[in-house]
Amino acid sequence: MTTTQANQPGALMAAEIAEQPQAWKTLLDNGTEAIAAAAARIVEYNPRFVQFVARGTSDHAALYAKYIVEISHQLPAGLVSPSTMTVYGAQPDLREVLYIAVSQSGGSPDLVQSVEVARAQGALTVAITNNESSPLSQAAELHIDVLAGAEKSVAATKSYTSELLALYLLLDRVRGGDGSLAQALPDLAAQVLDGDAHVREVAQRYRFAQRLIATGRGYSYPTAREGALKLMETSYLSAQAFSGADLLHGPLATVDPQVPVLAVVPAGAGGEAMIPVLERLAERNADVFGVGAADRIAGLAGGISLPAGVPDVLSPLLEIIPLQQLALHLAVARGGDPDTPRGLRKVTETL
Amino acid sequence: MTTTQANQPGALMAAEIAEQPQAWKTLLDNGTEAIAAAAARIVEYNPRFVQFVARGTSDHAALYAKYIVEISHQLPAGLVSPSTMTVYGAQPDLREVLYIAVSQSGGSPDLVQSVEVARAQGALTVAITNNESSPLSQAAELHIDVLAGAEKSVAATKSYTSELLALYLLLDRVRGGDGSLAQALPDLAAQVLDGDAHVREVAQRYRFAQRLIATGRGYSYPTAREGALKLMETSYLSAQAFSGADLLHGPLATVDPQVPVLAVVPAGAGGEAMIPVLERLAERNADVFGVGAADRIAGLAGGISLPAGVPDVLSPLLEIIPLQQLALHLAVARGGDPDTPRGLRKVTETL
Repeated sequence: MTTTQANQPGALMAAEIAEQPQAWKTLLDNGTEAIAAAAARIVEYNPRFVQFVARGTSDHAALYAKYIVEISHQLPAGLVSPSTMTVYGAQPDLREVLYIAVSQSGGSPDLVQSVEVARAQGALTVAITNNESSPLSQAAELHIDVLAGAEKSVAATKSYTSELLALYLLLDRVRGGDGSLAQALPDLAAQVLDGDAHVREVAQRYRFAQRLIATGRGYSYPTAREGALKLMETSYLSAQAFSGADLLHGPLATVDPQVPVLAVVPAGAGGEAMIPVLERLAERNADVFGVGAADRIAGLAGGISLPAGVPDVLSPLLEIIPLQQLALHLAVARGGDPDTPRGLRKVTETL
Repeated sequence: MTTTQANQPGALMAAEIAEQPQAWKTLLDNGTEAIAAAAARIVEYNPRFVQFVARGTSDHAALYAKYIVEISHQLPAGLVSPSTMTVYGAQPDLREVLYIAVSQSGGSPDLVQSVEVARAQGALTVAITNNESSPLSQAAELHIDVLAGAEKSVAATKSYTSELLALYLLLDRVRGGDGSLAQALPDLAAQVLDGDAHVREVAQRYRFAQRLIATGRGYSYPTAREGALKLMETSYLSAQAFSGADLLHGPLATVDPQVPVLAVVPAGAGGEAMIPVLERLAERNADVFGVGAADRIAGLAGGISLPAGVPDVLSPLLEIIPLQQLALHLAVARGGDPDTPRGLRKVTETL
């Protein structure tokens, strides 16, 4: 398990990382009814297009869900730029649009306003939050509580994976699924958490790194983005995330053996699509650390293997855990406190 | 003008930066017919949703156009993840979807495949390229040549702004506009290019920077992203771009006086929305360099003023020019050659 002494720097973040299996069990056990009711309304509404609105960590959960919609529901999807409504006053035609807002706190005014506009413009609005009584959950027609429990560390961890799980379960239910594939996740997460001591050692390797690149493709691209954000928030690294394809369109030039690369390479199609990216990185003698399937990361500078047999679409829930642990241990090793990063507030209010 | 000796490092990039006013004139003079024809077909098709597909620099042009669609056309829009089709085999329902692919070369197999799928799935497909005979322009039902002329430097410059202009003119025409607002742009660009000597001095200030953050909101967020990409490609900086709102949701923690910030702050609503972001950056004693309206950047550590009186939606064409110049001069000052960045190819082929 992820262990850090109480009252020590990062104690809250460590506890919340460790709570993830229990948080997911709570959602799997107690969230079914709300998810089924929301799914039934979505099926009845029969959307042609799905839009997501979110910020920060929750934006990565939204990006994950966008892949599910595009791949499994075969519907076009987009991530809304809230400023189009809040700064430029757009009132788009949103008939037949399913409009899903994702936010831990449900408190950011720009998200609330965008949901109000979307609802008035004909969209079916859904709020996915960790706060049932938030302004966002009240603004939307449907609300799903991710039931992660209070999150106190500024660096979001359990709320992120509970958002992933809630989005997966909702979208699976819309297709008539029963969420059974997800039942194994809490036990698998406990296995991943057991790698904490190894991750603490890995963190030493990055003790003096100032820059880092994270990459993944498909369902695992959100993992790369969220991993990079955790490292930025807690350890103040310039951690950049790129889809494996976009990395080759420019940013590859920044890679040399002095810029560490974290590659998310799971067992499925998204991991397979990373193989040519890993080849190009090897040509540049990049220092690549892998998180994913044991056979895919075997030739890299280092790696963390994830449990086998997890479907592509659920892999992101497990992949992020070692990256959360890495952000925690690196921040502490650098003398910081990831529970209260400099310059940040837990609830960010943007207009 | 942007001047660098022929056969010197960056000579191609310098020449192509300087060619932008002429390239835009060519498109304004000779592109009208193709744009009008495509616009007429789009009006007839009457799309309910708009999707864009692109990579790298062209992805920033697509993001710019997504803002136009959301704000001016009041339609929901999205950026497609090509891997959903090419890696996961999705065949989404794209009836009533306008599907716009943007690519300088028109040669990347993943974009071609995604356009082929989109066309088969009922979308109206449009290719915006700088290569009329490319596979992408042949795959799409409609094609608009941005007429920027051959681009030889690996770092794309004139093709980017010609893509912005082509997208603006097309979308303006769809709304019944005549593109008249854009006629002044070539002369304004020539004025901006005259600031080259100043930008060369500014580049000295970043000679030893390893990291940099670029930020903007609304129409100017794509400028921040493209400016960061140019700096990554040519000068190998870890340059990260965030929308002003997203910056406050986490990455702000990475900002201290040792991490330079480039803020794009034009005169309109997007620039106004940056004011609270600049305040938060000031609280962190950040070193902020502004590009935009003279009054908005007056209090910053430094800045480049752009000509007044340019509408919000057209400001991105001018804003990017000093950032292109900065990338060029910084790369040369660091002993690099921005025409042939390490590790990159002019045409990137991803699957």
